[in-house]
Amino acid sequence: MKFTVVTSNENKAREVAAFFTGVAEVAHTFLEIPEFRDNDVGVIAEEKARYAWDALHCPLIVDDTGFFVTALNGFPGPYAAYVLDTIGMEGILRLLEGADDRSAYFETAIAYADDSGIIRVFRGVVEGTIVSPRGEGGFGYDPIFSVDGRTFAERTLAEKASMSHRGRALAALRQFMASDGSSDGAKEPNC
Amino acid sequence: MKFTVVTSNENKAREVAAFFTGVAEVAHTFLEIPEFRDNDVGVIAEEKARYAWDALHCPLIVDDTGFFVTALNGFPGPYAAYVLDTIGMEGILRLLEGADDRSAYFETAIAYADDSGIIRVFRGVVEGTIVSPRGEGGFGYDPIFSVDGRTFAERTLAEKASMSHRGRALAALRQFMASDGSSDGAKEPNC
Repeated sequence: MKFTVVTSNENKAREVAAFFTGVAEVAHTFLEIPEFRDNDVGVIAEEKARYAWDALHCPLIVDDTGFFVTALNGFPGPYAAYVLDTIGMEGILRLLEGADDRSAYFETAIAYADDSGIIRVFRGVVEGTIVSPRGEGGFGYDPIFSVDGRTFAERTLAEKASMSHRGRALAALRQFMASDGSSDGAKEPNC
Repeated sequence: MKFTVVTSNENKAREVAAFFTGVAEVAHTFLEIPEFRDNDVGVIAEEKARYAWDALHCPLIVDDTGFFVTALNGFPGPYAAYVLDTIGMEGILRLLEGADDRSAYFETAIAYADDSGIIRVFRGVVEGTIVSPRGEGGFGYDPIFSVDGRTFAERTLAEKASMSHRGRALAALRQFMASDGSSDGAKEPNC
């Protein structure tokens, strides 16, 4: 089994390759993909995979991640990166001042297009709470997102990978690939 | 000259038709267009026009609007509708508590694809300040957006149309069409 990770982030591609050792051969391709808008990261990932497959015609994955804060009606949702760049973690904390409900979750959707262009979406979710910033590690919203008493920025990379939304979506995909006998890898086109 | 307004909003199409009386014949088409993400509404409108032209092959316009608050690094920008649905005007006001700079602007970009699929973008901007909600008219952010001492929700529709970002973008397009001799309208395909 072979597939390519379509991303501008080389580290992401390396992470996926390590994760699929023994299950699939993983390549890396960069492709400019328009950023489709939708409130559901699964729909966004699927649209991106369709676009990438139409351009490349080979087995591939793309992903999309959102951050959903309950008391803010799901904001910032799929626009987590944009919101971080503009109002930042500080903005999220300010919007939550006085709110009793501090729950939030991350969701990653990975869309896998197989050699015939059939697209399947695998999701990973991790639930937590919003706290004042703590910890030096991680990136993005990690310092204010706490699971079981510790923020993602207070955890090691390995620990975070094992419990994160992204890790869970990748695990669901790996499980599918490991049990999928429909493809022997020999006739799969390379990107 | 003929063109079609690609929108899910019938009122928008009627407004455009009234605006172009004597300049162009305006039709209305609905088409499901993926919502491209970008920080520039001009780029979004252009991508949408390209998508629509590939599907319809006829002269058409599509638009995109953003709301940019200076002290919030441009937030909510092109995600104005999503932000209104989640954290609302109240969220914007809370994020601005204590900020000296209350300036903001609306920008509409209209992308016009002509009968050969060439796309031109026309922009309209209106600058104002963020104030506590006032007025009963308008929609969206109108009650907190003030120009020359009055909010958009305190103005009549006609008044708003003459000074708004959308009105200005439409005026720029009309001016282009009125002076464009490249097309006689007879051979233009209908949508």
